[in-house]
Amino acid sequence: MTQHHFGSLFLGPAAENADLVERFVVEALRDHVFWRRNFHPEDGTFITERDKRSEAYETATSTMRQELYQLLSRLKHGAPFFSPRYIGHMASDTMIASLVGYFAAMLYNPNNISEEAAPVTMELELEVGAQLAELVGYGPAPWGHLTSGGSVANLEALWAVRALKYFAPAVAIVARELELGPVWVDLGARGRVELTSMSAWALMNVPVEAALDLRDAMLRLAAVDPRLAPALDAVIVGQLGVLGFHRRFERVCGEPLPEPVVLLPSTKHYSWVKVANILGLGAGQLVELPLDAQYRIDVTRFEAVLHELDAARVPVMALVAVLGATETGSVDRLDRLMAVRAQFEGRGLSFYTHVDGAYGGYATAMFKDPQGRWVGWSPYGSEVAASFKALPATDSLTVDPHKLGYTHYPAGAIVFKDQRMRELLAAAAPYVFIDADEEPGGTHAIGQYIVEGSKPGAAAAAVWLCHRVNPLDVTGYGALIGATVTSARALKEALAGFDSPEGFRLIPLNDPDLNLVNFIAVPPGVTSLAELNAFNEALFRRFATNPERVVFTYDFLLSKTEFDAEKHQAGLQARLDPALWALVAGGGRLTVLRSTVMNPFIAQALESGHFFQALLKALAVEMRAAAPEATRTAVGR
Amino acid sequence: MTQHHFGSLFLGPAAENADLVERFVVEALRDHVFWRRNFHPEDGTFITERDKRSEAYETATSTMRQELYQLLSRLKHGAPFFSPRYIGHMASDTMIASLVGYFAAMLYNPNNISEEAAPVTMELELEVGAQLAELVGYGPAPWGHLTSGGSVANLEALWAVRALKYFAPAVAIVARELELGPVWVDLGARGRVELTSMSAWALMNVPVEAALDLRDAMLRLAAVDPRLAPALDAVIVGQLGVLGFHRRFERVCGEPLPEPVVLLPSTKHYSWVKVANILGLGAGQLVELPLDAQYRIDVTRFEAVLHELDAARVPVMALVAVLGATETGSVDRLDRLMAVRAQFEGRGLSFYTHVDGAYGGYATAMFKDPQGRWVGWSPYGSEVAASFKALPATDSLTVDPHKLGYTHYPAGAIVFKDQRMRELLAAAAPYVFIDADEEPGGTHAIGQYIVEGSKPGAAAAAVWLCHRVNPLDVTGYGALIGATVTSARALKEALAGFDSPEGFRLIPLNDPDLNLVNFIAVPPGVTSLAELNAFNEALFRRFATNPERVVFTYDFLLSKTEFDAEKHQAGLQARLDPALWALVAGGGRLTVLRSTVMNPFIAQALESGHFFQALLKALAVEMRAAAPEATRTAVGR
Repeated sequence: MTQHHFGSLFLGPAAENADLVERFVVEALRDHVFWRRNFHPEDGTFITERDKRSEAYETATSTMRQELYQLLSRLKHGAPFFSPRYIGHMASDTMIASLVGYFAAMLYNPNNISEEAAPVTMELELEVGAQLAELVGYGPAPWGHLTSGGSVANLEALWAVRALKYFAPAVAIVARELELGPVWVDLGARGRVELTSMSAWALMNVPVEAALDLRDAMLRLAAVDPRLAPALDAVIVGQLGVLGFHRRFERVCGEPLPEPVVLLPSTKHYSWVKVANILGLGAGQLVELPLDAQYRIDVTRFEAVLHELDAARVPVMALVAVLGATETGSVDRLDRLMAVRAQFEGRGLSFYTHVDGAYGGYATAMFKDPQGRWVGWSPYGSEVAASFKALPATDSLTVDPHKLGYTHYPAGAIVFKDQRMRELLAAAAPYVFIDADEEPGGTHAIGQYIVEGSKPGAAAAAVWLCHRVNPLDVTGYGALIGATVTSARALKEALAGFDSPEGFRLIPLNDPDLNLVNFIAVPPGVTSLAELNAFNEALFRRFATNPERVVFTYDFLLSKTEFDAEKHQAGLQARLDPALWALVAGGGRLTVLRSTVMNPFIAQALESGHFFQALLKALAVEMRAAAPEATRTAVGR
Repeated sequence: MTQHHFGSLFLGPAAENADLVERFVVEALRDHVFWRRNFHPEDGTFITERDKRSEAYETATSTMRQELYQLLSRLKHGAPFFSPRYIGHMASDTMIASLVGYFAAMLYNPNNISEEAAPVTMELELEVGAQLAELVGYGPAPWGHLTSGGSVANLEALWAVRALKYFAPAVAIVARELELGPVWVDLGARGRVELTSMSAWALMNVPVEAALDLRDAMLRLAAVDPRLAPALDAVIVGQLGVLGFHRRFERVCGEPLPEPVVLLPSTKHYSWVKVANILGLGAGQLVELPLDAQYRIDVTRFEAVLHELDAARVPVMALVAVLGATETGSVDRLDRLMAVRAQFEGRGLSFYTHVDGAYGGYATAMFKDPQGRWVGWSPYGSEVAASFKALPATDSLTVDPHKLGYTHYPAGAIVFKDQRMRELLAAAAPYVFIDADEEPGGTHAIGQYIVEGSKPGAAAAAVWLCHRVNPLDVTGYGALIGATVTSARALKEALAGFDSPEGFRLIPLNDPDLNLVNFIAVPPGVTSLAELNAFNEALFRRFATNPERVVFTYDFLLSKTEFDAEKHQAGLQARLDPALWALVAGGGRLTVLRSTVMNPFIAQALESGHFFQALLKALAVEMRAAAPEATRTAVGR
């Protein structure tokens, strides 16, 4: 074991901690068992010892045992995520605390949708939400909770943003319909403006905080004007729908409301296409931002896009920046993007910023000390560090415990900087009175603020326990994730240094911002993109999980992705020699091998010095085997 | 134990099966442990025995143990869902198969979003989906899968329905823009119609199957006309958004496309408000259908609503019928509703039918024999039986294993009768070619067809194992759920028979279609609705989980809900005496106590004859205590 304590956090590649885990699991089970026995012991037993010797019971339990054996046998065809030899998708061994915490809580089967259905784990979930908010510097009153995963977190984020973007226009409708008199909006440096004097464009560019403050002002006004609450509830976009809202606005305010777009890097995760589709905005409203040579949003061209949209009077609903892109692991330059936002804010073009940190969010711990301060210096690169340190300037974050939090599925999370965002999602606004039982931020029923209606409280217990044993700073998750970043960089170097007597080449395609490495294998004398792709496809299949193949026959496991020659041009051109780039440049799609170096024991395997040599050897063997196969396939096309 | 085998299916009220469960859990753990050790045993151990005696390891494991103790101690404040004395929310003991199946699979931590991330549990999930489809008689090519819960299943259903409803209008746009020539739509009894000759109203009333067939026709045409696929992908509602679609239709087709509504019972679950909001349709597009005296959709008035909508030329996107309403457990008359649908279909008003059976779906097993045939006779009431037997005529179903499937959270499910529905949700249609690797219905990546992006494969293993040990027919789930329905009816009778010397009354407010009982407690001489509600609120608090109160001090646990005097009028008026109805009739909201009689051991507790007597006694004691308190509260208002 190294000086780190990773060895105690996981079951281990050879299940070295099996005894420990078994003790914890059995203890959790027995603890629950005897809790049950203390609830009305006078009721006695419902299943007697004599029952247990009945034929019906014997038959039923032997059926259960038989079927369990079948399940256990089928499960053995699963992917060996636990092994350092698995360097494919974002999967790895998971923490003991996650396993035991989940199991302990699932015995109680709480539903984290209200305190009544989950008196304990609802609290744990909100504690976890607060911890994640603190990690990224959101406050003073943030709102975070768990979701089933990053896709649902992204959906909830953009759902809230839609409600926010349409809020000022909704008030403009109501102010006219009810003849409310002057309603003032504080635009900060841009001064105070009277709402009904604002153009449709200006109403779609009210800054985030000003819109939330406007809602507070409406709550106060509703206390004295009983017409306001029902009128406002009736015109918000969630009630009228997107079509109805635009029609109503145009009818009441006399000009069309411009349709807003969402900006995001061109490597956008497919969940964003779904999210825009589901929300009725339309995937066509997603505007892709070009990438630089590190596959991050090209900031200069981002500025140019904003200038164009400003000139065309197309409002921006949100910028989605990415902290660890799914395919390249790249970290967008939040610091520079937020500087650009501030500049356009001054020009009257205002937008919300959501960070999709489903993958990279936990890596923030690499830059926080145990006192919660941003660390002054970082071994992980000053640009990446600067990006993470700009998180407090953003508005919300998707961050998945079940990725770099090393917990079990399902555990995504969404964190909003300002708790008031969630109120925009409630079915009915608490304009008239607030239930005395319901404190602000109360936990009584979160179902109205979130996409889901049932959620396992066990997931909250799992994440909570992980955070307790592995702090969200450089001593805990920071050290753990940092070690994997170091391993990923070592992998990139090892691939670059590969030398083959037959002339095969391995070309890394990224400089890992986090722990993800992309590369291609190039056979000697390759003459077309089709041939190159067929070769990498054939190679991938030799390293890919496959239900038909016995797991024990794999030496290493990889995953794959595709790079679009046009979208990834800057990065590809910087890394491919001119001849190879010429093959790719035609605008096609390049098949790329992809390794997430996420397993914490890889760092240790590297200490022995042989690990990546073994990988390179395995790649060499399989490249030799794949070459003729790929040639056949490419010719056959 | 009774003649049923329920005693072997659950851990038990006194954890009678603790030994059995412990053996299964330990076996599953060890089975996984030794699987790990057989993957590249030559790698040796990464955590050595010497490491385990290091100070760092000792410190880390003692931290883990300490924090686990804290978690275990906090969990003891959880609600005793396992006990027959818990008759509140839809929660109960869960099956051993669910616990063990979940635990066994979570050791492998599969992500059920693609076969690569879950080679085994993805298969199990699709097996489960097929079993649920077979249960309700969907086929020949249905599509079902698990979700995090009923809310997400409902969201996915209406998302698919929106895509379907806007599909024929999308083709109408493309047919004009590309001048495709005649496109024929087969409307069955209404004949074949040429698409571009159809009015906007007619395009919004293409029957479900005709719309799906139209899509097939477009796939065939796209194979010969390369312009079609990109043109169609570019105009579908998921791409253009709701606003953009209506604008484009009007511009291209020369008349506005009418905005559709969604019909559902006025007791609608709050998830439907969220769903309509999220989808950008707007909650205002939900049209509430009046209820009859059984709190089911009033079929006569449903017909009247359809006549009105037809006359006003307002298209119906979907009817949402409910199989087990959250608040009353009532089962809509699917047989009669589907007859009405057929009749309006003939008149040119066509709509999709989704069944929200999140709660009641599993009860279908009460009406199926082991050969999968509908049973001829049922002890559960001929009207309820007729409703279930009409399921094959509907188009999709939400059904939650984590409710009457007795599995752990998270396990909801959505089942579509026709697999083609899912294709409407894919980001890009496979117009041009179908990947040779991807068989129809293939499991390679379901992420494009569903709302979520990550899903625990462990939930699939849990549900799968439950279905193996407890068949989806009268011998398994049917008997289990049937026993709880019988218990619920007995509870209703017991409440009705309550006799109090002080003049307190207990009035059941429903005849349980399933296992849910609503009732109110009435103090003597009550003179106002406020007083009555305060009394029932005070009573509820004495039977409600509360993190401040030690769990062991509860005798019974209940939940509550509210009835809207206007919406529930038929049912209330039939059950309250005129004086009491006069108090409620003012249009206010009535606080109602709510008992889900879901625990399988209640049937056994009833055999002893004392169980409901003990409940009535506890209610009597607490009513006496609550009466003065309620009077104070009501006066204080």
